[in-house]
Amino acid sequence: MAKEITPRSENYSEWYLDIVQKARLADNSPVRGCMVIKPHGFAIWEKMRDALDAMFKETGHVNAYFPLFIPKSFLSKEAKHVDGFAQECAVVTHYRLKTVGEGENRQVVVDPEAKLEEELIVRPTSETIIWNTYRDWIQSYRDLPLLINQWANVVRWEMRTRPFLRTAEFLWQEGHTAHASADEAMIETRQMLDVYATFAEEFMAMPVIKGVKTANERFAGAEETFCIEALMQDGKALQAGTSHFLGQNFAKAFDVYFLNKDNQQEHVWATSWGVSTRLVGGLIMTHSDDSGLVLPPKLAPIQVVIIPIPKPSPELSEVADKIALSLRKRGISVKIDNDDQNRPGFKFAEYELIGVPVRLGLGARDIAANQVEVARRDTKEKQSVSLDGIDEYVEKLLEDIQQNLFNRAKQYRDEHITKVDTWAEFEDVLENKGGFASAHWDGTTETELAIKEKTKATIRCIPLDGELEDGVCILSGQPSTRRVLFAKAY
Amino acid sequence: MAKEITPRSENYSEWYLDIVQKARLADNSPVRGCMVIKPHGFAIWEKMRDALDAMFKETGHVNAYFPLFIPKSFLSKEAKHVDGFAQECAVVTHYRLKTVGEGENRQVVVDPEAKLEEELIVRPTSETIIWNTYRDWIQSYRDLPLLINQWANVVRWEMRTRPFLRTAEFLWQEGHTAHASADEAMIETRQMLDVYATFAEEFMAMPVIKGVKTANERFAGAEETFCIEALMQDGKALQAGTSHFLGQNFAKAFDVYFLNKDNQQEHVWATSWGVSTRLVGGLIMTHSDDSGLVLPPKLAPIQVVIIPIPKPSPELSEVADKIALSLRKRGISVKIDNDDQNRPGFKFAEYELIGVPVRLGLGARDIAANQVEVARRDTKEKQSVSLDGIDEYVEKLLEDIQQNLFNRAKQYRDEHITKVDTWAEFEDVLENKGGFASAHWDGTTETELAIKEKTKATIRCIPLDGELEDGVCILSGQPSTRRVLFAKAY
Repeated sequence: MAKEITPRSENYSEWYLDIVQKARLADNSPVRGCMVIKPHGFAIWEKMRDALDAMFKETGHVNAYFPLFIPKSFLSKEAKHVDGFAQECAVVTHYRLKTVGEGENRQVVVDPEAKLEEELIVRPTSETIIWNTYRDWIQSYRDLPLLINQWANVVRWEMRTRPFLRTAEFLWQEGHTAHASADEAMIETRQMLDVYATFAEEFMAMPVIKGVKTANERFAGAEETFCIEALMQDGKALQAGTSHFLGQNFAKAFDVYFLNKDNQQEHVWATSWGVSTRLVGGLIMTHSDDSGLVLPPKLAPIQVVIIPIPKPSPELSEVADKIALSLRKRGISVKIDNDDQNRPGFKFAEYELIGVPVRLGLGARDIAANQVEVARRDTKEKQSVSLDGIDEYVEKLLEDIQQNLFNRAKQYRDEHITKVDTWAEFEDVLENKGGFASAHWDGTTETELAIKEKTKATIRCIPLDGELEDGVCILSGQPSTRRVLFAKAY
Repeated sequence: MAKEITPRSENYSEWYLDIVQKARLADNSPVRGCMVIKPHGFAIWEKMRDALDAMFKETGHVNAYFPLFIPKSFLSKEAKHVDGFAQECAVVTHYRLKTVGEGENRQVVVDPEAKLEEELIVRPTSETIIWNTYRDWIQSYRDLPLLINQWANVVRWEMRTRPFLRTAEFLWQEGHTAHASADEAMIETRQMLDVYATFAEEFMAMPVIKGVKTANERFAGAEETFCIEALMQDGKALQAGTSHFLGQNFAKAFDVYFLNKDNQQEHVWATSWGVSTRLVGGLIMTHSDDSGLVLPPKLAPIQVVIIPIPKPSPELSEVADKIALSLRKRGISVKIDNDDQNRPGFKFAEYELIGVPVRLGLGARDIAANQVEVARRDTKEKQSVSLDGIDEYVEKLLEDIQQNLFNRAKQYRDEHITKVDTWAEFEDVLENKGGFASAHWDGTTETELAIKEKTKATIRCIPLDGELEDGVCILSGQPSTRRVLFAKAY
């Protein structure tokens, strides 16, 4: 432990990088903008993936896998239907390496003779290759809906990267569904938004606001983009997931028709929706503190650690094993730390750092008193608890921690949604308080961009549960019928 | 169902492609050599992955994720330590697309200004990038062993591809472990070979022979390559998994040292091991028949289908639901086919095609007689079974099918290992009977290559359980101390 964790109050951005490094979540890699997800970080992602995957399957989706590469011509097809197409992406142009030189001077070079006729793009998202495939899979309304999800890596050549939050390569899931009507596609789009919101709140303990993106913030191929927006501890917003109603755009670009019940050929209706390893960044920034990572129990790879005090012994191990067994029977993941090199204080700090929700400290005196010291990571409170019924106590405590983290985050989030009615109030919130500014906007992209230019704040969303309310735009003074949420964002 | 499945006896290769297509396992894609894994094929792979992942975790491994891209210079480092380095792989040279033209004439082109300083290779395997990372993770013997696995996509620019068996992009897992001694690394290498063999036999019901590769067939970076070899129904062998003892080769190429217990700097010892979506091809070719896919119950996404006869009705549904519930309580996956468009005969053929191990046909007369018709996919036997205790009956039947598939495949495999002592016998086995020829070989690469040149057969492995036996090489007549297994292979 060379360097301490930078306190959040001092430098939030440094604090974040310190947590990522010291909690052993990810490492930089020699490839620009690509990270190595370390075992602890990956175990958290696995728990997220498994929970989401189960929710997708419960809602009737199946998984499939499409190629990593997209022929360049597919993007030309998309570009014709999409304004503002531009892509920072990885382009494959050759398919062979060869060696030149011998021994220590041997070098690997790209074989200039092995040039591809058509360049391939490493998928930044898979709409094009998937809709090209759906053309063969869909003939009639009886083939619909097609409800497919893919877990995959994607690449976007981002210039400024930050572990989990923005990386050139990231892991994600992308749902791509096909429907016989606009209504059905819209219901699917909204259903998956709800799935994301439920996951964020119930598993990540991260409150989110469901909303619609403005035309300017919409996914280029979409007719409507829905999103969940969360608030980080530094008052910046994080887009945590998006669900797109794609209309017939991709069906038109890739000639995907179906025979409807009236025996007419019609373009198929589409949705797509995705969340990524960015959620791990959101998880860190929602709950963690200056001592390290704080994890909601439902996503903690180790939920309970038992530490023999001052060090492992046969007597302590026997009791520890018994406790662990009773906890595991309740589906709780437990680690017994039987390392005999490090002292309890060092271990306590370590498990705080990596975010284990509950720590049991077990000494000879505890056993004599038929009790154990229980420490919770979220509040750092410690308490002696009877060994009788310890399993039930811990199970309940894990639920409490899960709920407490959500409540804490929700309180912070709610306190940081500020209604503003003037430009001065708006600037004040963005500069001093942080969080969401709920303000009237005249509905034009021009004003939206002018506000971004002046303040760096963007419209995070038009909340779905927002009410109609007459007002005037904070910048232009033009009339407005509803408030939207502005914030600086990751 | 336009075209029937080509019978195996007529054209095994066509039969295989028909099964892949008609059982809806995979599709070709517009990207050369890359396939689309369809939902049914992917569900099988998911079951394989989950079973393997659990076995890796039980043996102390954790998952992590490393970048998709490898800097070209890393392969130069490897090439210096590896003879015969050559790589058909995807090379990324640029990082941006731009559009030219407008509207219908808009085209996407590679931006020539966005050329990478150093080309990136899409990983064909990850030893180099992982060992470059391990240099930072390993300082002393206390950091060892490092037992990491990665589930990932990899790309090898294969010229001749075939769904699952050989594709340009494929999914796999790659274990990369680091150890403080050669002994420990060798124990790990052998342990993972055993894990693969257990998985192949107990889950895939595919008998395998464990063996060592010859120097010529060894992974270029390895000191010893172990493999499991299976036999397909056409008498050709399939390498189903490999486990490599890498010695200190990658530690030397990437300067990875550890401080040993004697306070000396020493290069780290390594293993790597992998299996891929190729296993799905092996699964198909081990069990399936001219009616379609045959799946071992442990890997079947749907284990039991219940078909109301002649079509769904409230009475039939009630009983079907009750049966399904009792089966699900035993952890059995069940589908009730409530489609009312197709007739039972059509449905029977469909479920045979996609390999559902057990089919229950439920009609009004069955219910009156308190029974159900049970059909097993492996033997196609049908039997009326009492509804009392049907759950227990089916559970037992699934176990029987799993065992029967293994026994059947093992019998075929054992009958196709033929001891040969002369060149004439050797050629006869390869040309007429197929399978493995167990023969003496003089141990030289020269002879190995000459045999391959003459017969297309390769040495699949030197079996681990082979006995020492004096003999003479079938080609050179030189002395030999043990038999090796030759076969034509996928």
